[in-house]
Amino acid sequence: MSLRLNPRAESLKTPGTRQFSNQLIHYPNAINLTIGQPDFPTPNSVKEAGVRAIEQNLTGYSHNAGLIELREAVNSFFSNKYGFAYDPQNEIVITNGASEAIDAVFRTILEEGDEVILPAPNYSGYVPVIELCGAKVVYLDTTETNFQPSAEKLEALITEKTKAVFFNNPSNPTGVVLTKETMDELVAVIANKDVYVLTDEIYSENSFSGKHLSFASYKEIREKLFYIHGLSKSHSMTGWRIGFLMGPAEVMQHVVKVHAFNTICASLPAQYAAIEALTNASHTPEEMNVEYIKRRDFVYGRLIEIGLPVEKPNGAFYIFPSIETYGMNSFDFATKLLQEGGLAVVPGSAFTSYGEGYIRISYAYSMDVLVEGLNRLEKFIQTLA
Amino acid sequence: MSLRLNPRAESLKTPGTRQFSNQLIHYPNAINLTIGQPDFPTPNSVKEAGVRAIEQNLTGYSHNAGLIELREAVNSFFSNKYGFAYDPQNEIVITNGASEAIDAVFRTILEEGDEVILPAPNYSGYVPVIELCGAKVVYLDTTETNFQPSAEKLEALITEKTKAVFFNNPSNPTGVVLTKETMDELVAVIANKDVYVLTDEIYSENSFSGKHLSFASYKEIREKLFYIHGLSKSHSMTGWRIGFLMGPAEVMQHVVKVHAFNTICASLPAQYAAIEALTNASHTPEEMNVEYIKRRDFVYGRLIEIGLPVEKPNGAFYIFPSIETYGMNSFDFATKLLQEGGLAVVPGSAFTSYGEGYIRISYAYSMDVLVEGLNRLEKFIQTLA
Repeated sequence: MSLRLNPRAESLKTPGTRQFSNQLIHYPNAINLTIGQPDFPTPNSVKEAGVRAIEQNLTGYSHNAGLIELREAVNSFFSNKYGFAYDPQNEIVITNGASEAIDAVFRTILEEGDEVILPAPNYSGYVPVIELCGAKVVYLDTTETNFQPSAEKLEALITEKTKAVFFNNPSNPTGVVLTKETMDELVAVIANKDVYVLTDEIYSENSFSGKHLSFASYKEIREKLFYIHGLSKSHSMTGWRIGFLMGPAEVMQHVVKVHAFNTICASLPAQYAAIEALTNASHTPEEMNVEYIKRRDFVYGRLIEIGLPVEKPNGAFYIFPSIETYGMNSFDFATKLLQEGGLAVVPGSAFTSYGEGYIRISYAYSMDVLVEGLNRLEKFIQTLA
Repeated sequence: MSLRLNPRAESLKTPGTRQFSNQLIHYPNAINLTIGQPDFPTPNSVKEAGVRAIEQNLTGYSHNAGLIELREAVNSFFSNKYGFAYDPQNEIVITNGASEAIDAVFRTILEEGDEVILPAPNYSGYVPVIELCGAKVVYLDTTETNFQPSAEKLEALITEKTKAVFFNNPSNPTGVVLTKETMDELVAVIANKDVYVLTDEIYSENSFSGKHLSFASYKEIREKLFYIHGLSKSHSMTGWRIGFLMGPAEVMQHVVKVHAFNTICASLPAQYAAIEALTNASHTPEEMNVEYIKRRDFVYGRLIEIGLPVEKPNGAFYIFPSIETYGMNSFDFATKLLQEGGLAVVPGSAFTSYGEGYIRISYAYSMDVLVEGLNRLEKFIQTLA
């Protein structure tokens, strides 16, 4: 008998992104470039589909895997756009956002002592769900390879204990898109190993240079791959909470049970809105991208002017410049920037220690806000010189 | 390296309730009394609040714990009605339905080898989430005590390994409401033990005889108790997916992290609808209860006429008669009843082996459907005589 908690749960840390943005309340005049949420509203026709569902009382439970019409729309959207297919009957599950999809997969595959290889720096939501399962994260350092995970390094990290490799493409926090060459090499390594692959491609609709290439297009790893996506970013639907999880039927039959006992099904008005998003409103991301590319070019240009070394991002809505030369760690830099410069950005260390020496700037903000934000950054940097 | 799954996930079983209702598709003319979902629509003003949120673009992320206005409405509703209070700032979390609340608590407190005491028969969603955490379920048999869990039996089951005791009041599948005497005795035992208590009172608004007494009203166990509720049943909002979790701040600070990494936050239009449900539409359950009581009285009366021994339920919308005398297990009985009698009910064995010998009838159906359903049951029983 004891009131002891599970130490894994107890030791979970609040995400660094949140920790920092929570401080913002004390700086009402600060410009905030920390948020990973599109500044566009959900498209009108998508909103209308959600409203219609409510008005028509389509608010009961759905199948645990989600409405079959939505699963069919998911398959059509991705097969039309990327050429890979998942069976709506037994290879697609609609989740409460991509987060729940990732959590459900890890709970299904991970056992205590397993290892998961994770390119770093990375989004702060991945490590906790892996560690909560009793597994260990093994980092694949990408900081010396322009944030492209090296296949050689990957191969060296795979051991008897490796249960899965996890990719995020385009990447949060770097905005970097993996090159075909990188992906070919990574797939060549993985194809010969008994490891699962998870690929979080939630930012794929926000790719700015040519067609996005998905890990799901590589047939040789299809039977060990989980494809994670959702509408939060592509259709500015963060708060609706709709994610998609696709994988081979053999394994998905177990993932869907974990999902079902966790939460039964995703919210129904949101599921109906999602059907509209993937069909009649499937062009939405392209429209947003016109704006994102303008902003990306502006912010990138200004960072170069200001003199911060930075990789030009080709996707998502983040940019990840180095602040290494200023003799402060990223948390101190970001704190000083907020207190003295009136600008909030996320310290790179929020994305594991491999993000140390960087800051993440989100450009999911209007051009006015970005102009003022970058001016403040420039002024602040000048005080450090 | 291996493509082995977590055996705990692999061995999860599809809930018996679903297994059975899945068969229904082959019997289009059957009367279906299996569903645990109110047959009323969501109240109009609640629907309107959801619509308004969508129209006003209130569709971004909320705080991980949910909108503070909703947490305040939760506290007001329960403190007005039941006299116990939780701090909206740090003792209340809005979840994706009550299921996710239960899952989040167990993931926070359970470690491998822990035991959880669960009165049986019980809802089929409890055991899987406990076992997925590597803990073991210890059943407290209530079949010999009119489905009231005996404090004496509870005390005998508590060991060094017991981490938590779980109650569901009113109960699914029996519809039984715990008496004050039962609860006083259970609390007296628990107050002196280092064990957590989870109480799923999602059916409390559907209590038919006097004021519902909550385990959360017992101050002596407040610091070890998690109170689980939601709007699925009280406001006919199953598919909106809104649950409430309340507990002591000290522990809730950890539960909210598990919730956040699992799913970030509950769906926003649903959170706004929930505020309306708990404030202006707080009378909804009473209106539904007028109807439920009529139906309960009708179904109970017919079961007595037909000759099936049954405990008169005082809450939820289930009734759980014994079919023991017919020389079949409950799965065979229910299958035969469906195939030959054209009536679908849930076999008691879907609620653990302690439900063997019973069937669960849901009366969340219109009177017409119930009349025809009970006629079919009577006819079927006559063929067995």
